Amino acid sequence: MTAYKAPLDDLRFALFDVLGAESTLTGLRDGAAHSRDLLDAVLEEAGRLSEQLLAPTNGPADEEGCRFDKATQTVTTPKGFKEAFKQFAEGGWTGLTNPEAYGGQALPNVLGTATTEIFQSGNLAWSLYPLLSEGATHALEVHGEEWQRERFMKPIVAGRWTGTMCLTEPQAGSDLGLLKTRAEPGENGTWKITGTKIFISAGEHDLTENIVHLVLARLPDAPEGSRGISMFIVPKFKVNEDGSLGARNTVAAGAIEHKMGIHACSTCVINLDGAEGYLIGKPHKGLMAMFTMMNAARLSVGVQGLALAERALQNSLNYARERLQSRALSGPKFPDKPADNLLVQPDVRRMLLTQRAFVEGSRALLLYTALQTDVEARATDEAARKTAGELVAFLIPIAKGVVTELAQECTKEALQIYGGHGYIAENGVEQFVRDARIITLYEGTTGIQAADLLGRKILQLQGVGFRHLLEEISTFCQQHASDESLRAFIAPLAVATKNWSELTLKLAQRVQANPEELGAAAVDYLYYSGYVALAYMWARSVAASETGAHAAAFRQAKRDTATFYFARILPRCLTHQAAIEAGVDTLPSIA
Amino acid sequence: MTAYKAPLDDLRFALFDVLGAESTLTGLRDGAAHSRDLLDAVLEEAGRLSEQLLAPTNGPADEEGCRFDKATQTVTTPKGFKEAFKQFAEGGWTGLTNPEAYGGQALPNVLGTATTEIFQSGNLAWSLYPLLSEGATHALEVHGEEWQRERFMKPIVAGRWTGTMCLTEPQAGSDLGLLKTRAEPGENGTWKITGTKIFISAGEHDLTENIVHLVLARLPDAPEGSRGISMFIVPKFKVNEDGSLGARNTVAAGAIEHKMGIHACSTCVINLDGAEGYLIGKPHKGLMAMFTMMNAARLSVGVQGLALAERALQNSLNYARERLQSRALSGPKFPDKPADNLLVQPDVRRMLLTQRAFVEGSRALLLYTALQTDVEARATDEAARKTAGELVAFLIPIAKGVVTELAQECTKEALQIYGGHGYIAENGVEQFVRDARIITLYEGTTGIQAADLLGRKILQLQGVGFRHLLEEISTFCQQHASDESLRAFIAPLAVATKNWSELTLKLAQRVQANPEELGAAAVDYLYYSGYVALAYMWARSVAASETGAHAAAFRQAKRDTATFYFARILPRCLTHQAAIEAGVDTLPSIA
Repeated sequence: MTAYKAPLDDLRFALFDVLGAESTLTGLRDGAAHSRDLLDAVLEEAGRLSEQLLAPTNGPADEEGCRFDKATQTVTTPKGFKEAFKQFAEGGWTGLTNPEAYGGQALPNVLGTATTEIFQSGNLAWSLYPLLSEGATHALEVHGEEWQRERFMKPIVAGRWTGTMCLTEPQAGSDLGLLKTRAEPGENGTWKITGTKIFISAGEHDLTENIVHLVLARLPDAPEGSRGISMFIVPKFKVNEDGSLGARNTVAAGAIEHKMGIHACSTCVINLDGAEGYLIGKPHKGLMAMFTMMNAARLSVGVQGLALAERALQNSLNYARERLQSRALSGPKFPDKPADNLLVQPDVRRMLLTQRAFVEGSRALLLYTALQTDVEARATDEAARKTAGELVAFLIPIAKGVVTELAQECTKEALQIYGGHGYIAENGVEQFVRDARIITLYEGTTGIQAADLLGRKILQLQGVGFRHLLEEISTFCQQHASDESLRAFIAPLAVATKNWSELTLKLAQRVQANPEELGAAAVDYLYYSGYVALAYMWARSVAASETGAHAAAFRQAKRDTATFYFARILPRCLTHQAAIEAGVDTLPSIA
Repeated sequence: MTAYKAPLDDLRFALFDVLGAESTLTGLRDGAAHSRDLLDAVLEEAGRLSEQLLAPTNGPADEEGCRFDKATQTVTTPKGFKEAFKQFAEGGWTGLTNPEAYGGQALPNVLGTATTEIFQSGNLAWSLYPLLSEGATHALEVHGEEWQRERFMKPIVAGRWTGTMCLTEPQAGSDLGLLKTRAEPGENGTWKITGTKIFISAGEHDLTENIVHLVLARLPDAPEGSRGISMFIVPKFKVNEDGSLGARNTVAAGAIEHKMGIHACSTCVINLDGAEGYLIGKPHKGLMAMFTMMNAARLSVGVQGLALAERALQNSLNYARERLQSRALSGPKFPDKPADNLLVQPDVRRMLLTQRAFVEGSRALLLYTALQTDVEARATDEAARKTAGELVAFLIPIAKGVVTELAQECTKEALQIYGGHGYIAENGVEQFVRDARIITLYEGTTGIQAADLLGRKILQLQGVGFRHLLEEISTFCQQHASDESLRAFIAPLAVATKNWSELTLKLAQRVQANPEELGAAAVDYLYYSGYVALAYMWARSVAASETGAHAAAFRQAKRDTATFYFARILPRCLTHQAAIEAGVDTLPSIA
């Protein structure tokens, strides 16, 4: 059984003090009402819901898991899930950021990102059911036809149905070009979809009366590879024109997977047997719609890393406070107790500060990225929208790739602080490690994020988003160049940023000469980028903590954690630089 | 279901080519028969046993787990365990390295270490049952009385019984000085032991007719803390003078833990209720006997890291060979297939080479350490015994602390290569990650190993073992200074070793000024030491591969992996050095 308290103070600090979200949001189209007060109220309510409704189910639901009934092809979710989803939908959370025209509340994405963190900390496996819906509604909003949005998107926004993303097949994982599911013309402009999809999160469940699958498949005349993929709406129950449910469609779960973690999320094999579907957008253009879903989902998966790490940090910090064992190296600190607590051990503080540096730094980075998506969507100035969009495109692979990897380290360190007790299921921290292990895999592995960052965002798009970020960091450094109290952070940030820029240029040249160099450097380049981006967030955090009326302890904790980050984490760039410069010759072929 | 094939080629290479074990062993007391032929035959037989008897049980036993029956306080181990243990005992493996006088085969410890790797790869959880016995017999051999060895050690050596180490209590983990279990005088020189022990591996099971618990407890007049701990033999069934079993003793399992991994190992709460026991050695000197058990066990836990990483590597390499997905960055390599295999991706090779560098490097390091234990025990020259003992004392925390941490990375990378399929239980690789997570915790956490290395082996013992290793590396570098084909390894090894030496000196001075600096630097220093030690092993491995009749592919693989290691792994020392130099001021107090 693990505790969880929504980190409202730090969320507010990141949103309002570090990122200045209020002034940004209220300046956007339809943003006048998005004041700090409104956002604050929503955060508080999300905190209450997660702490009271979701967090207590996390351990028991992991133990119970989902049950699949072969005869009826149905999944029973763990105790409490259905009731939690009902309350969640009734509270309007399923449509928090969707347009009002489709029943949503049209609140900013940065707020949705913050509340997603809170819900995912409460129960990651549960949160996947509404999360998959978000990707589906986003794809329908951008690529669907109006009648499709009316019929299929609105009920998802209302929380009456959920959505899925049916991409993966046994032979087609990272390489969707290999997928075989086929679509043949049916009656009245419908399509008949046939094939097998695997790893479909929330693919079948008992939370809602219907499920809308968004399925990638090939038309009969489709070109080979990823240029021949189309996207279809395939509902579990067919839907009549008036929105009422019709007959059961021939799409069904064939099995659920037994996994290392997220036991309470039903991960399904989905069989389509001539299932009735509707084409979204144009034929063969499904990959574009898929990326619309995927990019939103990737940011959310980054947030999953943050969410798990936050809860792991809270619990390992509590444990370190309460566990009495050994004495401080310089003599007893609690002489009236049988032993000192673990916090007196510098190495335990190292593990806690590592978590805190990654958690709070990642939170700022993810919310920064999310805020840019709001600017991209709703800035009144077109140039601002374009810049924000380019920044988002650059930041997404870092936000997903790096934060999910750092979450592995955070949850590992949290468990380590518990000692042997961390290995015992009932103490709950091992679940965070198991749950976290999926996030570097789904929605594109770390290798895929790294290839996207270096191959597409740096090389193909000529680093346009990267240059925006460099300019922004440079402006920040100049603004604070003479600020004595920030000297310890600004100078090394400027150096790191300059190195990052130079390294990128050299690497780009090398990859142009030999494309294999891309794969040889990409993951190390991803880490390098992430560590510098987090350094920027930490420098901004210290700067922000010094203005406004923050408690002395809060200010000191920010400064301490930033000091730790610059002294002990940022130097990891040295190792990654060495690996990048070593090149592909140090990765020779393996038989 | 995962494959396993004992890596006999690499074991032989490490033993005979890198370490020259044959000439060392045959030169030791009672070592004339320990020829390469004999050792080879034992390795082959161990491989056969592990591949055929243990490896197939690994996945199913994890799923089945141990069952505890509360009414009878007994544990049922998974299917196949009892039969495997019977065959193991009949083959003489339970007494492989024990003295002939007690029924053992008196084979070298370095051979026992190699076969332990093989068995642990087959099934780690199963291997813990005989492993715990090894610690117990070792403690009895060194610290017990003759009648105790006759009555309690011989049946364990014969595989009729097993042993345990009963140290931990709920309030006493890393800090054994806090333990409360008490021993009061009983009849005829026996003791009555009362208390509760937790986390007792193999504490109760159905593999043998009796279990010999070695229990730490306090005598009535014991001084406080770790100076007041005594060790007792507490058999599950009392043993008559003729060796036959007597009445059930009042020591019993109260529960078994539900754990993240090693489900098939019974991890017990052991309740002692005035249980009859026999003092081992002198009163209050139990900690010394405990360390005798512990040091042997620590090396074996390092081997567990190697064993899990080896099997994870084998399977992820197979997967990367067979999985067809995407094309090489420079164009198709298998144009007649629907996609190229994963091996064409440089980033997949990075993950495989990381595993290979750690697996083969760790194997050499662990066997090197084990060989020194043989020299320590049986060299005819006293000075050689002393030097070897000092080297072993220095190397144990590195062998345990670093190899177990690297095993986390290896199993993580293996799973990552599988993509989403790695997260699915039936594919088996996620079990390696779960099983591996215990090894940085038990037998002393990584923090404890680091404190032992820096606090005891460097500072208290004035780095005597460290200096032996530095001299040895220096001699090696000089021997090969003019060897053109080794230039890429010798020069950086010499630099790294010099830096290690200088860093150690500076760090020692700083810790003398402020003991808190020990805790602030210890884990980073442990890693730094491990990476340099592995660099030494890799340089020796390349040198060894160039002599003798090795296949060209084998030679090339050694050189490639060493090149990778020096270019991409050894630079991690830069980061650890920065962290060490940052000092305790960057780890300020946490409220």
